[in-house]
Amino acid sequence: MKNIPVIMIIFGGSGDLAHRKLYPALFNLYEQGLIHDNFAIIGTARRPWSHEYLREQVKDAVHEMNTEVNENNLTNFVNHFYYQAHDVTNIEHYVTLKNLAEELDGYYSAQGNRIFYMAMAPRFFGTIAEHINDQNLTGNGFNRIVVEKPFGHDLTSAKELNRQITASFAEDDIFRIDHYLGKEMIQNILPMRLTNPLINNIWNSETIKNIQITLAERLGVEARGGYYDTSGALRDMVQNHIFQIITLLAMPEPKALTAKCIHEAKGELLNSLIIPNENEIAAHFVRGQYLGSDMTFGYCQEPNVAADSNTETFVAGEVKFAAGPLVGTPIYFRTGKEMREKKTQIDIVLKQKSNIYGQAHSNIITIVVDPEMQVYITINGKKISASGIRRQNLIYQFSSSEQKEIPDGYERLLHDVFVNDSTNFTHWSELKNYWKFIDAIESAWAKENETGQKPEQYLPYRMGPKAAEQIFDLPTEHWIYE
Amino acid sequence: MKNIPVIMIIFGGSGDLAHRKLYPALFNLYEQGLIHDNFAIIGTARRPWSHEYLREQVKDAVHEMNTEVNENNLTNFVNHFYYQAHDVTNIEHYVTLKNLAEELDGYYSAQGNRIFYMAMAPRFFGTIAEHINDQNLTGNGFNRIVVEKPFGHDLTSAKELNRQITASFAEDDIFRIDHYLGKEMIQNILPMRLTNPLINNIWNSETIKNIQITLAERLGVEARGGYYDTSGALRDMVQNHIFQIITLLAMPEPKALTAKCIHEAKGELLNSLIIPNENEIAAHFVRGQYLGSDMTFGYCQEPNVAADSNTETFVAGEVKFAAGPLVGTPIYFRTGKEMREKKTQIDIVLKQKSNIYGQAHSNIITIVVDPEMQVYITINGKKISASGIRRQNLIYQFSSSEQKEIPDGYERLLHDVFVNDSTNFTHWSELKNYWKFIDAIESAWAKENETGQKPEQYLPYRMGPKAAEQIFDLPTEHWIYE
Repeated sequence: MKNIPVIMIIFGGSGDLAHRKLYPALFNLYEQGLIHDNFAIIGTARRPWSHEYLREQVKDAVHEMNTEVNENNLTNFVNHFYYQAHDVTNIEHYVTLKNLAEELDGYYSAQGNRIFYMAMAPRFFGTIAEHINDQNLTGNGFNRIVVEKPFGHDLTSAKELNRQITASFAEDDIFRIDHYLGKEMIQNILPMRLTNPLINNIWNSETIKNIQITLAERLGVEARGGYYDTSGALRDMVQNHIFQIITLLAMPEPKALTAKCIHEAKGELLNSLIIPNENEIAAHFVRGQYLGSDMTFGYCQEPNVAADSNTETFVAGEVKFAAGPLVGTPIYFRTGKEMREKKTQIDIVLKQKSNIYGQAHSNIITIVVDPEMQVYITINGKKISASGIRRQNLIYQFSSSEQKEIPDGYERLLHDVFVNDSTNFTHWSELKNYWKFIDAIESAWAKENETGQKPEQYLPYRMGPKAAEQIFDLPTEHWIYE
Repeated sequence: MKNIPVIMIIFGGSGDLAHRKLYPALFNLYEQGLIHDNFAIIGTARRPWSHEYLREQVKDAVHEMNTEVNENNLTNFVNHFYYQAHDVTNIEHYVTLKNLAEELDGYYSAQGNRIFYMAMAPRFFGTIAEHINDQNLTGNGFNRIVVEKPFGHDLTSAKELNRQITASFAEDDIFRIDHYLGKEMIQNILPMRLTNPLINNIWNSETIKNIQITLAERLGVEARGGYYDTSGALRDMVQNHIFQIITLLAMPEPKALTAKCIHEAKGELLNSLIIPNENEIAAHFVRGQYLGSDMTFGYCQEPNVAADSNTETFVAGEVKFAAGPLVGTPIYFRTGKEMREKKTQIDIVLKQKSNIYGQAHSNIITIVVDPEMQVYITINGKKISASGIRRQNLIYQFSSSEQKEIPDGYERLLHDVFVNDSTNFTHWSELKNYWKFIDAIESAWAKENETGQKPEQYLPYRMGPKAAEQIFDLPTEHWIYE
């Protein structure tokens, strides 16, 4: 790989995300030579760490992810790390940071290139962006900014944040990261759709009955109750991950395999996103809250959650487009905390046609994203010893050696930031449409709250509220993953 | 199951087929109650066996196939067996046989029903059929005749045999048996084609590039050299098994799931079978003969084979139809003795379309008939750690418990004879078209023989002659199963 000269500044350098994801990923990219001699990484956060302390932390982080580490390489790697204590509201600190970056740029010949990584609490994103601009932290080479989710809280705040960031960065230099777009099976959606006539031929609303996306978590809100209670499942999971998956499934074929063409195709699709009205929301959306059990708190008893909270920990709903290959086809989704098991699965359900054998099952293409990686196709075959039809599951399961080969999503996406490939990042033209949709649902729910209507309660470690089984357009539709 | 009253006469009752296949199958049908009190089975052959000796033979045959046998049931079953020594050319013996059948019919209340099973050397089929008619062996209930392959040696002799049989039996009462039609995966072809929109949608000549049928045997001619040298692979395997598979793949959708509608659809297809001319035969057909090795004879050194024999032990060729869903689509086949391994496999290869990922592999639907039972679909997916496309095999493998559940082909087909279901038997309208095609090839080869051209020689236990790799219409086509 080409060695990219750069000074990278990580806001939130003492945080959990940096520790678990960014540092191990950066080390792997270092070992591959993508960053090598001409780089430095500045961690900033409130805590008064030393360079040396950060370096030890980075070493620990790498060891936690890798059992076999070349210690020489690791030592050389961490010597490129610097720590700068930083209060995001203190203008002087930005000046210090700017000076440190420029000094390191000279020392490492980083050619004026800068990557800013927003890895801290989202409420600071706007402030940091403003001060990067005020204090002119950008270098005279390339300048890129990586922004973690959530990008805003609704369309209005997202617009404001975008305004703050675009003061210093062009749209093409803003990398709104969604780690789902770094996952193997998510990156497999477009190749599978477009390179297989067997699949491509049926990818239309005449043949596909519906698509179902399940993104189930086993965990509850844990220590994140305070943040989560201001967000909820719709903003936390649907606005980003689920909508990105839907977009990949429903977008028209891009003209070419470039970031520009892919974002154009996505944008074209999302301009046709149908915003549901209140009746449609009442009929096809369900929000839920997990109950407690002998061993666990119910959501409203979790630390830092309001006892009368209406925040949803589960949501099921429906998305449709007025254009694209799946025009009018229902795309159902559901996501929730404290569900039966961790599972991200996409089921593409084909319409059944009458045939001389009588009753037959729907053909289904299933993509399991997490925790296994699988593709399977459910077709009909003959019953062995009787007449009639039964299901046959044709399965492709990634082998354990294949699974080991798969880089972590963050490693992939950081690589893409370094090489300036924005294919797997969220463009503003996508994001603003996602927020329009989310805002419509939130607004309908706010009205429901005023009438005293609460989220559906659901038993923990099952498949969410019963009501989620009744969101379908047709009585013949049901969740495939049960 | 319904108990079918019948007297069954097996010509060739002391033979290998009766021992290995018919007797175990009949016992299973007995245990299922399809035949129970009101039946008798008369074995006839030249050898001077007693009833008791036949019964011991039948017991042995059942034990050889079943490890767990209910001995009481088996004894009751074999007591329905009778032996009649018989010279097929001796008219008096038919009278004895008729009397025995009538006597047993009275004793067992078989209601005048008769099933005649031709399980002996094919050269006697015509003689037996004539004498069944001369001596009026048919009963006054139903009369059915089961005829093993080969049904004739060419169109002329098949017509003559058919004339002899139809003197006593209506077309609907003639069960030309092809045990391939009793195999699970062959019986699965139509259900898979017709009940799966995913497959049904692509089952046309716009989408399918070619179909490939491989029917490889590991064994040589063994003790059958004398018969085989008068037949060859084309008559022995293509005229029946391979053409039946091709017919199931290429036939139009039947109007209903009845024997009549299925034979109509097959007949409709076969009327559009394109008979190749000599140039096409030279370009798209290859015949071969296996060579010897340190351990094995070459074909021409086998016992009872002519040292200058031109009989083919391998044939590869192409079949096309002028109508039906696969109009014009090449269907390639090959079959041979002493090939690398026993394998019957069908590969349905889809046309590749250009896509934004560049080079992609053909989608393939593979049905493995023998010795495993599998369906798999080969599609493209993304390469794991690089950009680009790789193959993913989605597989359905019958479990060992499923495989145990599968009845032997003979059990299925005998069942069908008892219940008068001719769906999985060869109708005359099919057979005559198969022979027209075979005769055209044989005639072209006979001309080649006159010019001194010999079959291609091939090394044993490989994939046949090299020349078989050049029978394709297009340079982009090749054998999928290598």
